[in-house]
Amino acid sequence: MIAPPDNELQLTKLFPIIGWLKTYTRQNFNDDLFAGIITSILLVPQGIAYAILAGLPPQLGLYASILPPVVYALLGTSRTLSVGPVSIAAIMIASALTAPEVSALGNPVQNALILSAESGLIMLLMALLRMGGLVNFISHPVLTGFTSGASILIIANQLPLTLGLKSPACGIEMGCYIGYLQTSNIITLLISITAFALLLFFGKPLSAALKRVGLNLTLVTAISKCGPLLTVLLATLAVNYFNLAAQFNVAVVGQVPSGFPVLSLNFINAEKWRILLTYAAFIALIAYVESVAIAKVTANLRGEKIVPNQELIALGAANLATAISGGMPVAGGFSRTMVNFSAGARTQMAMLIAAGILALAVIFFSARFENIPKAALAAIILVAIFGLVRIKHVFHTWNYDRGDGLAELATLLGVLILGIEEGIVLGIILTIARNLRKTSHPHIAVVGRIPETGYYRNIKRHSVETWHHLLLVRIDENITFANINYIEDYLAAELGRQPNIKHIVLIFTSVSDIDTTALEVLEKFNHALQASGKTLNITEAKGPVLDKLKKTDFIKQLKPGQIFFHTEDAVKALV
Amino acid sequence: MIAPPDNELQLTKLFPIIGWLKTYTRQNFNDDLFAGIITSILLVPQGIAYAILAGLPPQLGLYASILPPVVYALLGTSRTLSVGPVSIAAIMIASALTAPEVSALGNPVQNALILSAESGLIMLLMALLRMGGLVNFISHPVLTGFTSGASILIIANQLPLTLGLKSPACGIEMGCYIGYLQTSNIITLLISITAFALLLFFGKPLSAALKRVGLNLTLVTAISKCGPLLTVLLATLAVNYFNLAAQFNVAVVGQVPSGFPVLSLNFINAEKWRILLTYAAFIALIAYVESVAIAKVTANLRGEKIVPNQELIALGAANLATAISGGMPVAGGFSRTMVNFSAGARTQMAMLIAAGILALAVIFFSARFENIPKAALAAIILVAIFGLVRIKHVFHTWNYDRGDGLAELATLLGVLILGIEEGIVLGIILTIARNLRKTSHPHIAVVGRIPETGYYRNIKRHSVETWHHLLLVRIDENITFANINYIEDYLAAELGRQPNIKHIVLIFTSVSDIDTTALEVLEKFNHALQASGKTLNITEAKGPVLDKLKKTDFIKQLKPGQIFFHTEDAVKALV
Repeated sequence: MIAPPDNELQLTKLFPIIGWLKTYTRQNFNDDLFAGIITSILLVPQGIAYAILAGLPPQLGLYASILPPVVYALLGTSRTLSVGPVSIAAIMIASALTAPEVSALGNPVQNALILSAESGLIMLLMALLRMGGLVNFISHPVLTGFTSGASILIIANQLPLTLGLKSPACGIEMGCYIGYLQTSNIITLLISITAFALLLFFGKPLSAALKRVGLNLTLVTAISKCGPLLTVLLATLAVNYFNLAAQFNVAVVGQVPSGFPVLSLNFINAEKWRILLTYAAFIALIAYVESVAIAKVTANLRGEKIVPNQELIALGAANLATAISGGMPVAGGFSRTMVNFSAGARTQMAMLIAAGILALAVIFFSARFENIPKAALAAIILVAIFGLVRIKHVFHTWNYDRGDGLAELATLLGVLILGIEEGIVLGIILTIARNLRKTSHPHIAVVGRIPETGYYRNIKRHSVETWHHLLLVRIDENITFANINYIEDYLAAELGRQPNIKHIVLIFTSVSDIDTTALEVLEKFNHALQASGKTLNITEAKGPVLDKLKKTDFIKQLKPGQIFFHTEDAVKALV
Repeated sequence: MIAPPDNELQLTKLFPIIGWLKTYTRQNFNDDLFAGIITSILLVPQGIAYAILAGLPPQLGLYASILPPVVYALLGTSRTLSVGPVSIAAIMIASALTAPEVSALGNPVQNALILSAESGLIMLLMALLRMGGLVNFISHPVLTGFTSGASILIIANQLPLTLGLKSPACGIEMGCYIGYLQTSNIITLLISITAFALLLFFGKPLSAALKRVGLNLTLVTAISKCGPLLTVLLATLAVNYFNLAAQFNVAVVGQVPSGFPVLSLNFINAEKWRILLTYAAFIALIAYVESVAIAKVTANLRGEKIVPNQELIALGAANLATAISGGMPVAGGFSRTMVNFSAGARTQMAMLIAAGILALAVIFFSARFENIPKAALAAIILVAIFGLVRIKHVFHTWNYDRGDGLAELATLLGVLILGIEEGIVLGIILTIARNLRKTSHPHIAVVGRIPETGYYRNIKRHSVETWHHLLLVRIDENITFANINYIEDYLAAELGRQPNIKHIVLIFTSVSDIDTTALEVLEKFNHALQASGKTLNITEAKGPVLDKLKKTDFIKQLKPGQIFFHTEDAVKALV
């Protein structure tokens, strides 16, 4: 095979779509068509529901489901990620829009578009600075704790809708809540219960039953994914038929402007941008981290590769696209991506098809969305979100690693008590502080030789030979400003306990770097040793460490202490 | 020897003075008496000079030299640290007192006392939280950069005094400076030049000459340390004799209230405390870090031990003492401590004696301080401070370690351009970010066996045996959220290059911990490997790592992959 010219490679790197279109087959298209239709069935109710969750008119969710997935399809490295409105971003938008300094600005729709544009620009800036690796600094426990906390906030936000309650203004006065609950709407509750029953039935029970009947697997998939659409359809028919909105005060979506969104830049406003910047940064961070995490899951299952920095470009461009087409901020959605993947999507063509279907729906059917009861949409969100609340996972994490468990719990509680952004920050600070603390107490082992071998092991864990005037110490971490004092104290304490020691041998198997602070302290420590007639020696130093030390006087200063290749050599020379 | 009872040990821990008083000898006292007198000779001009540097009346420096060293003598673990006013803290106080929100408060003396009290309380709080280890998070390069930057600020602050200039108000208009320089006072300049000449002469030249003459070493020390006092004495005599202050407008110290400071708590003011809190926190941090660094230098030279947390208590109490006795914030001073040490001080008794002499001086001679010319004091500060500006050291650090060099330069420039506090914060953030970045790109080596040995080494650095379906990878760092993605990508890339590989063996010699995120990623990676018929194996895992893994299903999930004790065992089993 002849390698393609360089500029073509560059182009494929920026537009991964070129890569897969080259080998695209008829069969791929059939698969993608099916998956695209299935996903679009989910996308309509989700788009409307997440817009309402964010406290926005329904069309902002629908518009966010058209242009952004098209842009992502051109630029993204995931073949199956479904980009559009997502629940976690929606609750973050709700939190931003209701913050006092933001709600004081008025015009929440414009504010939402600014959040889209800003988070898009932030992602592109991060891509420019090659900060794709940033995803590494949010640990899984923090992300899980955050998702649990945000999901609980979503449930608290949506549950009143299933009871037909307006949002409460009770604060901590419990009596008020009783009166508030009495305002619940029985018809709305009936709709909700029916919706829950239908959605749960369309989950595992229906698939199992259909499979038992011997139905074609493709058809089983298709039918079982129709639960949300059917729920919405039936609920809307009921509202229409019995005139529930007018007669029984059932809350409905309300008018959705018909037709395609008009591209527009009328959200440019310097003062608002400044106030919304922090919120946009958090939305960008979480949208990016969650999207990459989801993209990696499906990519791993198919042996495909996600390029984090290209994802920043794709998601950033998708968010700019949603801003100019009047949509809310977007990210890769977990449930939709899994539906798309399991419906057999091969490439982003499926998402292009879904976006096309959504565009048609918006143009021709948006008048029909008016009477969708909010309770049915809330039921869809709640069924999807319950699984994301993973309180038990905190104990699971705690059991494996206390520090991680603590970070997960703190993030979860932080999101609930302090706020969404504060919760993330708390989690990140705890993980970094913990990481620093861990490096400041490195694992150090006094080692001895396992008899008749060349292996040296911890004297506390193995029965080993030792020599009374020789101290062999293995330092199991890079030596830096953060841990050199601990190491110095450890060695001084060992010398205090064993005054016979004449030679200290530091074993550097695990040391990949010695920073300036550590070198300076080691130099002083060596001088103090020499003053009391002892020597400092080093073995098993790796190439990069030796290269760095050779730039200094340290090796000369060690004399009569030496640098040995193997611990065995040091023992032979010094015993 | 019978061990002392527990509560006596506790008492000695809190009051280290009890420890050394027990074995105190007549000879110790003679040594301490001499050192105490020598140090007090330095303490008088320094106390006045640093108060003026901080923008405060001279008595705040004198009072800070009496009670605080007494308190430190009772509580401190260093036997030779000289606690009192210091130049770096003085410039930080000056920066705090001239900040717009602080100077708006009025009454700088009260503000300085609040800084003393607050920084003392902050140190005691840190001691309570056992945060003595905090000193580990300011690396040497950051501290050196900070000291250089602060010293340049001190020079810029003091240089005009040697020319008899008032502080300029020229901003960036260069013409203004020419006019400003023309206001310089020629008599003041003459005093400065004489003072510089005298001070420099009393340094090495005089010591060398006296030694050549064969003078007793103790006497050489005594005479050579008298430079500052003699300078002040001569300059003051000149001012008195020629009436320079009135006739030639030479700036002098001015009236110093006579008598002992009255203990007082009249600085308690809630609103001021809130505004000064941040400044006090920075002063506490730097005072603590610098004091411990200096204490360690002399302690190492005598094989004594500094206990960081007890130092927090001692320095905190000393700062509370300076607040109630009307003094500025205190710390351990480098030049004074070295003078005290080299004058032969054995214990803190020397500092008790120096404090006593200073108390007498304040009671009986404070009227004589009035005509000390500020230029002479500025010369003393400048001679002491020049050595602390270590611009070349930045290149030295850069040469050994780029990241450290960058942090040092950024801290230095940060202090000069952004401000003292901002400079420290910048340095600390850079070091932590760099540390995180380093752990996120761990050293990973593909290894092979050095023929006919059991040693496994990097295939890039040694000629080693390898096996075409076996990949031996040594990971040289703890595996955490910060680096697991890098490790996963590295392994995936290796597998992409060598599709024949059937078994991956991870060598955990350097791995002391695997956090939750890393474990989850490893689990997924293992599943993906198994799906393509490959196995994941682990060797050389340390006890704590194995213990942690045994709490999970991971070892079970590995099958048919295994945990081996030695790499050699893995090779024997898998080849």
